Amino acid sequence: MRVPFETVKETVKKAFLNAGLTEEQAEECARIHTQSSCDGVYSHGLNRVPRFVDYVHKGWVDVKAKPELLHARGAAEHYDGHLGIGILNAEFCMDRAVALAKEHGIGLVALRNTTHWMRGGTYAWRAAEAGYMAICWINTESCMPLWGSKEPSVGNNPFCIGIPHEGGSIVLDMAMSQYAYGKLGVYRLAGKKLPFPGGFDKDGNLTDDPGAIEESMRILPTGYWKGSGMAIALDMAAALLANGRSGDQINADELGSCGGCCQIFLAFDPYLFGSKEEAEEMLNRRIAAVHAAAPEREGGRVSCPGERTVATRGEHLANGVEVDESVWEEVCRLAQ
Amino acid sequence: MRVPFETVKETVKKAFLNAGLTEEQAEECARIHTQSSCDGVYSHGLNRVPRFVDYVHKGWVDVKAKPELLHARGAAEHYDGHLGIGILNAEFCMDRAVALAKEHGIGLVALRNTTHWMRGGTYAWRAAEAGYMAICWINTESCMPLWGSKEPSVGNNPFCIGIPHEGGSIVLDMAMSQYAYGKLGVYRLAGKKLPFPGGFDKDGNLTDDPGAIEESMRILPTGYWKGSGMAIALDMAAALLANGRSGDQINADELGSCGGCCQIFLAFDPYLFGSKEEAEEMLNRRIAAVHAAAPEREGGRVSCPGERTVATRGEHLANGVEVDESVWEEVCRLAQ
Repeated sequence: MRVPFETVKETVKKAFLNAGLTEEQAEECARIHTQSSCDGVYSHGLNRVPRFVDYVHKGWVDVKAKPELLHARGAAEHYDGHLGIGILNAEFCMDRAVALAKEHGIGLVALRNTTHWMRGGTYAWRAAEAGYMAICWINTESCMPLWGSKEPSVGNNPFCIGIPHEGGSIVLDMAMSQYAYGKLGVYRLAGKKLPFPGGFDKDGNLTDDPGAIEESMRILPTGYWKGSGMAIALDMAAALLANGRSGDQINADELGSCGGCCQIFLAFDPYLFGSKEEAEEMLNRRIAAVHAAAPEREGGRVSCPGERTVATRGEHLANGVEVDESVWEEVCRLAQ
Repeated sequence: MRVPFETVKETVKKAFLNAGLTEEQAEECARIHTQSSCDGVYSHGLNRVPRFVDYVHKGWVDVKAKPELLHARGAAEHYDGHLGIGILNAEFCMDRAVALAKEHGIGLVALRNTTHWMRGGTYAWRAAEAGYMAICWINTESCMPLWGSKEPSVGNNPFCIGIPHEGGSIVLDMAMSQYAYGKLGVYRLAGKKLPFPGGFDKDGNLTDDPGAIEESMRILPTGYWKGSGMAIALDMAAALLANGRSGDQINADELGSCGGCCQIFLAFDPYLFGSKEEAEEMLNRRIAAVHAAAPEREGGRVSCPGERTVATRGEHLANGVEVDESVWEEVCRLAQ
């Protein structure tokens, strides 16, 4: 069903106020959850609201905590998130990285001991829309087998790149698993096979049967050994820079998904070494070359990361945000 | 066949001296090519020597050019490579990034108008062995179809992460294609299928037949749409920061593979916000957790990026570097 953006946001906000967030916290978190659904990332938008409220009730997210500056050196800052609200901690840190990039050309903020940031792309979009290039990533609890292993042994550690562009930012938001668990459920409920193999069944055979992968927990790293290698490197790099937990120390049963994780925020002044005009000319030409690439199927269209998000956003703003009816009912109850 | 490291290096050095490199240039480039073969990356080690010599003869690589500082701002520097020797330009820039990281905590060097850096991992290893964390990437000519396209429309844009560790650095060196073209040839010549589908045949069917992919030029991005999206984001990010060519402007027929490309070097002081002791403790624990992950097959072993490289390096140093006989003969001729 479709619900207007403002209605979704106000409802989520009431749910968050009921959970004990302040007016300002509830407003911003509701905006971000609604924006994620509006952008088509339902799994980390409205669908995550009940779980976030549950985490607050369990004390896994401390709504009173604020990021604490531990160290500042040159173009880099280090914060402890004190298990505060993941979205607000991450927004604060990306904004600090942008401020450092304004001064030094680039900025690094390393955040430890924070909580789920919901959709990673939020922060890449945020920097890009403020006119800065960004790279950010997170380490999560083990939810994916490393290549060569049959048990969850690394996080899916989303990695994001944001590039500002007047015609619409280019934003990559990429987890290290080929499919999210949420996506497997969507296919299973629809009685469909995955478009490509997404994991191994319990006997170790590569399969496109979503239910068999949910059962085995052997979700496939994107690009087999490649996504596995990148996931472990991102995990270590995050824990190293933030002097915080590595993935093996993040326990979802203790503090919830991503509870106590590390996040890294890098911001770059994109016009450090060239003018905005040169940058826009390059991006317009490069994007045009992407669109001009011969499509695989007649009538197909090749697009850049973020382009479909912008299209979905526009359609949802015009016609209402698509919401799952049962999730919407649950959030409405939380808002009462 | 096996040839001792020093013999390989001295032979490559003579070939490079014959091509017009100075003593110092030839020594360093020979060391890097030999090290790549020694580490098991044959495609960018000895096997690339004849092509590099050919590029010098064609004037595609200018052995007299040096990186020129165009701009310096805060923790960031911008260089023009003037189509100089790719390895030397890239080593210089990674060393500058490390020097900037020493001063500012992090350092960024953006290099434009350079040439093939051979093995991307070289520079991540270099920073890691100097005690710095590094991220680096390159944009290349279009050699891979974007997802949804049937023609080469983006580079395979290798992306590297290096993490210093006393027991052996963790180094990820990952191109955005599932398999390198070189690897397809190896499988085809051995009469083997690929372990997993590596591209599409000319009719658009996903296939594990290496010859069919060489024919169609429709090599598969790693993780399908994911590697495709990351490749285009890396391309734009490199061209943006270096104010240089985007992939669509890199023409291998004009200046050779990677001729005129951009490269980005990021270095991080890994002990910015924690002690080396804390870092080593975390890495040792995390690596042990990787090794303890239940293997898929009995007797299997799960490893971190770089671990197999270190093992291959040790074996080659003890028993001689593995070289392809026909390539070795060709390099010996170039050295005469």
